[in-house]
Amino acid sequence: MDHFHHRAGAAFCEEVPLRAVAEGAGTPCFVYSRATIEHHYDRLAEAFAGADPLLCYSVKGCSNLAVLDLLRRRGAGFDVVSGGELARVLRVGADPRRVVFAGVGKSAAEMDQALDAGILMFNVESGAELDLLDRVARAKGRRADVALRVNPDVDPRTHTYISTGKRESKFGIDLETAEGLAAGIPARAGIRMVGVHAHIGCIAFASRARAAGNPVEWLNMGGGFGIHYRGAEARPASEFGGVLVPLVREAGLRLVMEPGRFIVGNAGVLLARVHYLKESGERRFVIVDAAMNDLLRPSLYGAHHRIWPAEAPFPESEAADRPGETSLCDVVGPICETGDFLGKDRLLPRLAPGDLVVIYSAGAYGMAMSSNYNTRPRAAEVLVEGDRWTVVRERETVEDLMRGERIPAR
Amino acid sequence: MDHFHHRAGAAFCEEVPLRAVAEGAGTPCFVYSRATIEHHYDRLAEAFAGADPLLCYSVKGCSNLAVLDLLRRRGAGFDVVSGGELARVLRVGADPRRVVFAGVGKSAAEMDQALDAGILMFNVESGAELDLLDRVARAKGRRADVALRVNPDVDPRTHTYISTGKRESKFGIDLETAEGLAAGIPARAGIRMVGVHAHIGCIAFASRARAAGNPVEWLNMGGGFGIHYRGAEARPASEFGGVLVPLVREAGLRLVMEPGRFIVGNAGVLLARVHYLKESGERRFVIVDAAMNDLLRPSLYGAHHRIWPAEAPFPESEAADRPGETSLCDVVGPICETGDFLGKDRLLPRLAPGDLVVIYSAGAYGMAMSSNYNTRPRAAEVLVEGDRWTVVRERETVEDLMRGERIPAR
Repeated sequence: MDHFHHRAGAAFCEEVPLRAVAEGAGTPCFVYSRATIEHHYDRLAEAFAGADPLLCYSVKGCSNLAVLDLLRRRGAGFDVVSGGELARVLRVGADPRRVVFAGVGKSAAEMDQALDAGILMFNVESGAELDLLDRVARAKGRRADVALRVNPDVDPRTHTYISTGKRESKFGIDLETAEGLAAGIPARAGIRMVGVHAHIGCIAFASRARAAGNPVEWLNMGGGFGIHYRGAEARPASEFGGVLVPLVREAGLRLVMEPGRFIVGNAGVLLARVHYLKESGERRFVIVDAAMNDLLRPSLYGAHHRIWPAEAPFPESEAADRPGETSLCDVVGPICETGDFLGKDRLLPRLAPGDLVVIYSAGAYGMAMSSNYNTRPRAAEVLVEGDRWTVVRERETVEDLMRGERIPAR
Repeated sequence: MDHFHHRAGAAFCEEVPLRAVAEGAGTPCFVYSRATIEHHYDRLAEAFAGADPLLCYSVKGCSNLAVLDLLRRRGAGFDVVSGGELARVLRVGADPRRVVFAGVGKSAAEMDQALDAGILMFNVESGAELDLLDRVARAKGRRADVALRVNPDVDPRTHTYISTGKRESKFGIDLETAEGLAAGIPARAGIRMVGVHAHIGCIAFASRARAAGNPVEWLNMGGGFGIHYRGAEARPASEFGGVLVPLVREAGLRLVMEPGRFIVGNAGVLLARVHYLKESGERRFVIVDAAMNDLLRPSLYGAHHRIWPAEAPFPESEAADRPGETSLCDVVGPICETGDFLGKDRLLPRLAPGDLVVIYSAGAYGMAMSSNYNTRPRAAEVLVEGDRWTVVRERETVEDLMRGERIPAR
C-alpha cells in the first residue's frame, strides 16, 4: 500500500502530480510520501500492539531529517548505527530513551556520545565490544544498558549482502558465547543486560539470561520485513504480529523492532528525465539523468525497481504490461561504466527525450547510499504531504562537491 | 611500481611513515603519492611519445583538485564525463584545449558549458547525442569538434561492470551507424569531426571518415591499461606503445589517451584502524573503521585490494605470506550489512585493536565512489610529496552531512 498512483494517465504522489515536483525541484529527485510512511508505521504499531512495542525506525534506510521528524511525531523510536545517525535523531528532538544503538564497529567515542545522550540501550555484537563498552562506561562512572545480539545461524534466503543472520556473518554472537557473556554480566560494573536482540527462536535465551541475574525486559527482533518491489509479494505485518505477540507476552518481554525498508521503501520514488534513446546491436537503451550514484541498489544487489513513465497509463502490475505497445529496454544513467543501470530488460512504452520516468520503491537505501561519483551533485529530496510538497534537502551544487579540497602551496 | 614500501618493519609513503599520517589526519584516510602519480604519467608519456600523444587523465578515478593540479603541472590534459568534472579541471587551471568530454548522457546544459569553455572535443556516443550537440552548437553560432566513439564489439574479459567495449553495452556507436554519421557530418553546420574514439582495430574507419570529408586528426584509444592489484600481473605501457605507435603514425593521426586507474590506482592507499577482532563460527573477522562507504570496489565488483598491517614485516607478494604466522580473516567495516567488507579470506598476522592497516591500490574509484551511507562522514585525503604531507580534503563532519536538509514548517 502506498500513495503513489496514476490519475487520468499521470503519476501522482498523494495529491501532487509528480510532473509538478520535477518541474519545480528538477531531476533527479527523490520524492517521499508522508501518508505512506505514516501508514506503514501505523500498520506495524497495530500489528504488534499486544507486545507493548518500541518501534525503532532504522535510520540507515533513509536518514533525512524531515523523515525522522515525522516519524518521531508519530511515536517512533530510532535504531541508529553510528554517531552520525545518533546526531541526526537528536537533532529532530528524539527522546534518547527511545533510541537503540546497533552495529558491529562502534568506536569508544561513539559509545561515549551515546552514554552522554542517555540512549535506551546498545545492541552488543561481540565480546570485544562488550569489554570496550564496559571500560568506557566505568570511566564515566556509568552502567551501560545492553542487549546481546545472538546470531541465530539461519539463512533468510535473500541476497548474500542483505542476509545478516547466518553464523558466518560479521553480525551477532553465537549462542554458546552469548550464554557465557550473559552469565558474567551481573559481575561487571559497567554493563547491565536489559535485552536480547535475537530471532524469535532464541527467546529461551532471554529466560536463561534472566535466571543468570540479568534484568532482561526487552526482546529486539530487528527489522527484516519484506516489501513489495514487483507486485504484492510481501506478507502483511498483521500476519507476523499474530504469531509473535503471544510468544513475546508469554515470555514477559517487551518488543523492540527496527523496521526501516518496511516503512520507507515504498514511500519514496526517484524521478528522472530521459536524455537519449539509443539502439546498440539488439539492445535498446533509455539514457536518463539519474544514475548509479543516485540509486546504487540495482548495480550493487541486482535489486529490482519498477520503472514507468510518469505520463503513460499505468498497468496494474508488471506482469500486466502489454508487450504489443511496449519494447524491451535497459534504463541506464550517464555514468561511464557498464554497472550504471537502473533497470534491465524492461517493457516500456515509447519514450522521447525530456519524458519523466518514475523509479519506484526508492525510499530506502536510495539517497542514503548515494555518492558524488563522476562529480555528480546528489539529488534533491522532496516530501509530499497531501497537496503540499517541500524540498527537504537541496540539490547539491558542484561547488559543494569541492568544499574542503585544497591544493598544497608550491 | 609505486612509492609505498616498508622500511624497518613500518609502512611508508615516499619518505613519510603512514603511522604519522594516521596520527595527524585520523582514519579512515586516503593517502596519495605524488611521486607514484608522476611516475605513471611519465611512463605513459614516454611509451607513446612517438605518436605525439595527448594524455587526458580520466578524472572520474580520482578527482581531488590537488591530484588534478599536479597532473596539469606535469603536462596532462583531462578526460571529463560531466559538467562537474569540467568545473574541477578548469578550477585547477587546465587548458581547455587539452580537455575531452566523454560520456553517454551529456545534457544540453553540459554541452553549452563545454562549448563556452572551449574544450578540444566531445566524444560522441550516439546519433541522438550528435543531433543534440549540433542543435546546441548552432544555437550558439558555433561548430562543436567531435570524435565519434565506435563500439568495437570486443570482450575485454574483465568484470561485466567494467567492460565497456561489447556491442551490447550502452557505450559507443556500432561501426555501420558510425560510417553513416561520419558521411553526413560535413553537411552539418554545428559539428566538425576531428577524431575517432576507437579500438586500434577500427583505425581504418578514421581513414574512411577522412575520405568522406572530415578533418580527422585524432585517434582516441581511451583508457583500459591494467594495474597491479596482487603482484605484477599488469603489462608495461612500453609494450603497448611499441605495438601501437607505428600504426598510429602510419595513419597520420595523433593519439589521445584517457588513462585513469593506470595513473592513480596504485598511487593511493586507504588507511584504517582495527576496532575489534571477532570470531564467529569458523570465521575470523577484523573489524576496522573503514567501510564500504569509503571503498565500494570490493563489495560492488568483487575487487581485490591487498591489505596488510602498517607495522608488520611486509611479504614481497601475497603468495609469499607465510601461513605459519598468519591466520585467515575477513576484513570488514562497521556498516550494518553483509556486503560491507574490504577483503575476504586474507592471511594476516596477529592484530590488536588500534592497529593500523593499509588497504592498497585504493587510489582509483576509492574516494570517487565514496558515500555517506550510515551517516558516515567521508574520509580525509592526504597528498604525500617526498617528506611532506598535506591534507588535500578535510574529513567531513556530521554537520556537513545534514547541510541542505530542512524540516517543513508545521
